[in-house]
Amino acid sequence: MKSQMVPIVCIAALALSVCVVCGGKVLVFPIDGSHWVNMNILIKELHSRGHTITVFRSSGSWYIKESSPHYSSITIDTPGGFDEAFLNELTSRLIQIQADGESSWTRLQVEWELMVKGAEMTQMEIEMLSKLLDDHKLTQSLKDAKYDLVLADPVEPSGAILAHYLNLPLVFNVRWTALGEGHFAIAPTPLSYVPMPMIELTDKMNFLERVLNVLFFAFYELQAEFILRPMYAPFTNKYLGPDVDYFQLIQGADIWLMRVDFVFEFPRPTMPNIVYMGGFQCKPAKPLPQDLEDFVQSSGEHGVIIMSLGTLVSELPKRIIEEMAAAFAQLPQKVIMRYTGEKPSTLGNNTLLVEWLPQNDLLGHSKTKVFVAHGGTNGVQEAIYHGVPILGVPLMFDQPDNLSKMRAKGAAKVMDIFSVNRDSFLQGLQEVLHEPSYRENMQRLSRLHRDQPMKPLDRAIFWIEFVMRHKGAAHLRTESYKMPWYTYHSVDVILFLLAVMTTFVATFVFGMKFLCTRICCKRKSKQE
Amino acid sequence: MKSQMVPIVCIAALALSVCVVCGGKVLVFPIDGSHWVNMNILIKELHSRGHTITVFRSSGSWYIKESSPHYSSITIDTPGGFDEAFLNELTSRLIQIQADGESSWTRLQVEWELMVKGAEMTQMEIEMLSKLLDDHKLTQSLKDAKYDLVLADPVEPSGAILAHYLNLPLVFNVRWTALGEGHFAIAPTPLSYVPMPMIELTDKMNFLERVLNVLFFAFYELQAEFILRPMYAPFTNKYLGPDVDYFQLIQGADIWLMRVDFVFEFPRPTMPNIVYMGGFQCKPAKPLPQDLEDFVQSSGEHGVIIMSLGTLVSELPKRIIEEMAAAFAQLPQKVIMRYTGEKPSTLGNNTLLVEWLPQNDLLGHSKTKVFVAHGGTNGVQEAIYHGVPILGVPLMFDQPDNLSKMRAKGAAKVMDIFSVNRDSFLQGLQEVLHEPSYRENMQRLSRLHRDQPMKPLDRAIFWIEFVMRHKGAAHLRTESYKMPWYTYHSVDVILFLLAVMTTFVATFVFGMKFLCTRICCKRKSKQE
Repeated sequence: MKSQMVPIVCIAALALSVCVVCGGKVLVFPIDGSHWVNMNILIKELHSRGHTITVFRSSGSWYIKESSPHYSSITIDTPGGFDEAFLNELTSRLIQIQADGESSWTRLQVEWELMVKGAEMTQMEIEMLSKLLDDHKLTQSLKDAKYDLVLADPVEPSGAILAHYLNLPLVFNVRWTALGEGHFAIAPTPLSYVPMPMIELTDKMNFLERVLNVLFFAFYELQAEFILRPMYAPFTNKYLGPDVDYFQLIQGADIWLMRVDFVFEFPRPTMPNIVYMGGFQCKPAKPLPQDLEDFVQSSGEHGVIIMSLGTLVSELPKRIIEEMAAAFAQLPQKVIMRYTGEKPSTLGNNTLLVEWLPQNDLLGHSKTKVFVAHGGTNGVQEAIYHGVPILGVPLMFDQPDNLSKMRAKGAAKVMDIFSVNRDSFLQGLQEVLHEPSYRENMQRLSRLHRDQPMKPLDRAIFWIEFVMRHKGAAHLRTESYKMPWYTYHSVDVILFLLAVMTTFVATFVFGMKFLCTRICCKRKSKQE
Repeated sequence: MKSQMVPIVCIAALALSVCVVCGGKVLVFPIDGSHWVNMNILIKELHSRGHTITVFRSSGSWYIKESSPHYSSITIDTPGGFDEAFLNELTSRLIQIQADGESSWTRLQVEWELMVKGAEMTQMEIEMLSKLLDDHKLTQSLKDAKYDLVLADPVEPSGAILAHYLNLPLVFNVRWTALGEGHFAIAPTPLSYVPMPMIELTDKMNFLERVLNVLFFAFYELQAEFILRPMYAPFTNKYLGPDVDYFQLIQGADIWLMRVDFVFEFPRPTMPNIVYMGGFQCKPAKPLPQDLEDFVQSSGEHGVIIMSLGTLVSELPKRIIEEMAAAFAQLPQKVIMRYTGEKPSTLGNNTLLVEWLPQNDLLGHSKTKVFVAHGGTNGVQEAIYHGVPILGVPLMFDQPDNLSKMRAKGAAKVMDIFSVNRDSFLQGLQEVLHEPSYRENMQRLSRLHRDQPMKPLDRAIFWIEFVMRHKGAAHLRTESYKMPWYTYHSVDVILFLLAVMTTFVATFVFGMKFLCTRICCKRKSKQE
């Protein structure tokens, strides 16, 4: 069989010409911080296709600018939004704790602070929303504007609530919800092979791992029931009426644009109104700036290693960076290392220290051999797109979980960044450089990811425009979430059938007993 | 918002250019009868894209011809295959029974005969397969031919078994499996809102309907366990080894091309390796032959009604056809009626009797107002595609179930064909003609069906070619089917956690009791 890869650019071009909805009006409720980066990709694409976008932001927002060529904004005067300063401080403390090998108890305390802060942010979001809905001039103007849909991130409740209030179709741009990973809110999730997020399990679990998985699920459920529900109830009661349940608002979304890709994640049950757009930010590499290109070319046949650990790398103890740089110095490869701290004393001549690097263009360069990464979702997805194997050194959040998935697929080696020294790090690098399976596996994932009938971003836009054209996508959405749990799981039916069977068996047994007694009695009386 | 329908022809053209696998070799294991019609559509399309197709057939096959411009065939010398004569005789008896209003008992007897015949056909299929696998020259030539994949219909076991034997990827063209509707084999199926096939239920069920649904599910499960498994086990044991379970072979297919469309069916959980191609046979209407076009145009503003009840209509009692023709005669519309029996005495001047009609071209004609149909899947899907409301008069098999779905979506009225008279039939016709909701709902379904990023047939071919390119689609398929049921449903974990909790509570209670006793004893001894 002759076969040839589908050129994704060509499909993108095809798909573009499918766009035939022009001038739609989209109301966006984003989440600040890294989530905004993902939302902004959709906003720019929608704008480029002729739609008008209005973005809600709080006056305290860090990332979401008030003015943009791609959208107009409505600013609510609250300090709400993403508290970057707090988050940075907390995460750097988390790094210190891990680096210093402090007790799990100390770490748990910080994680607790993070959870409390999350709840505080949700509370602020609710206050911002109250302010919004109390401003009758503003809500009237929103009604008058006749938007076509609300595009929202379901990590916070605003989008779903506003869509309900304005009676508009709802599209989610989602990886997480308050209930955990996005799928958990609407798709059946057999815990025997669907790992809960964050706990570094795969779709092949042993008994104890499955026990852990069930316990984590219970934790999420309890949190939803006893923390989130009481938090939202007074608000939904006041503004939307007593019959409105917050979780049902979430579950009632028309389309879930899921930042998930089964090349990256494990296959699991899904729903007809879930549209996968994992890797929607990926794009072919552009040529590098000349000086960087010269540096890369100077690596000759050995190629280059890229290291980018996100913005938090400057928080790492100097010792770790020194050890890493020392390991790099022993390699024949050239190394491009993103690092904003003090220059390591062990830095080799082969290593270029940069404050920022064109990550996508470097990953797409033919000379790139290994990506040393902390395991942020977008970075991993870009590595998959370009087929570059990963040496993973996760720091926190979803990073260990992301990298454990890549490890399970044979496309990454994962090391504990806080215990690496120059020898172990060098050994790790050499393993990923010279053991061909890492590259082969990642290249296979890359081929699978790129071989789709439509580019993920085009698919996302198609379904947003679909919702505009048809005022929703009700035919793809089950309404099973409106059932009580015992009905959904047929518990009532099973109990009923058990009762019927018991009655039947009991009647039969008693009937037989009665008959036997009668026959015995007759015989006895005859004998007598 | 300005919006415009996506012209499906244009998307088809786009998608066509995505085809970049040439010269794949496909081994097809079809089912005879109406299933073959659907398989042949895929075969023709694959052939037109440069693939080589080899089709297995039995020497007794009715539909599957030995020679074709689209495929070469391998004929196994057995009487197996679809027994059309038997089926026709049995179905005409079923019609008579319903028409004569005979007892349910008589009907059940015929249904039983049909089931026994089904089992016989499966047995014949197994014998044919044994013959095939015993022919070492043939199996060697199959191995030597280096096929890229097996394309099969999972109603019978051959495709899955041969794919396993030849170690080839497996793609199903499926609506049903031996386990019932195709989804049941691999996707979680909450019986609270997913109706079992054939029982005319919707996704909104009351308590008794849910009880019925669970009972039907149990019936399918018992049938699989106690009829099918023992039937396949000796064969798989002999040819594939003792560890191979037939149902696991089915569940292990790479891609399930499902002849399902959520515009027609109800939304339900699905899996990443299920590709929906419902309506893949639909295409734009071609111009009618001149005489038919003249007849249609002569209807003026009233338009035409199409009646086509499939091949079995000639088996209907003359009385029913007379009543229907009498009702048609009272309408100002023109009627085109497919009927091969004796000309009804009540036939009006407005009614054209034909032995065959170009159904798709007539349904796509702007003058067509109503489709009087028996509810075969393909006919319903074509009516959806062209947006023509249905007056349904189901006869048997999946027809009542298909039509009940259209009724639930407000796009069809359904009548009992065996009790219609001219008045009730006329009333039914007038309701569908003049109550605008039927047409509006069907037109809405048509718009939804046509608005897809890719034509269903192109999507199907894309995924067949995907499996060729990547030697399977393992990353989209869970391996959860290999788990024992108690593991899959986490029963072992739940029992373990309950045991732990019980132990904990028991220890606590006994501990407290022990302490109390001690304290009481001390107090007593002090008091003493």
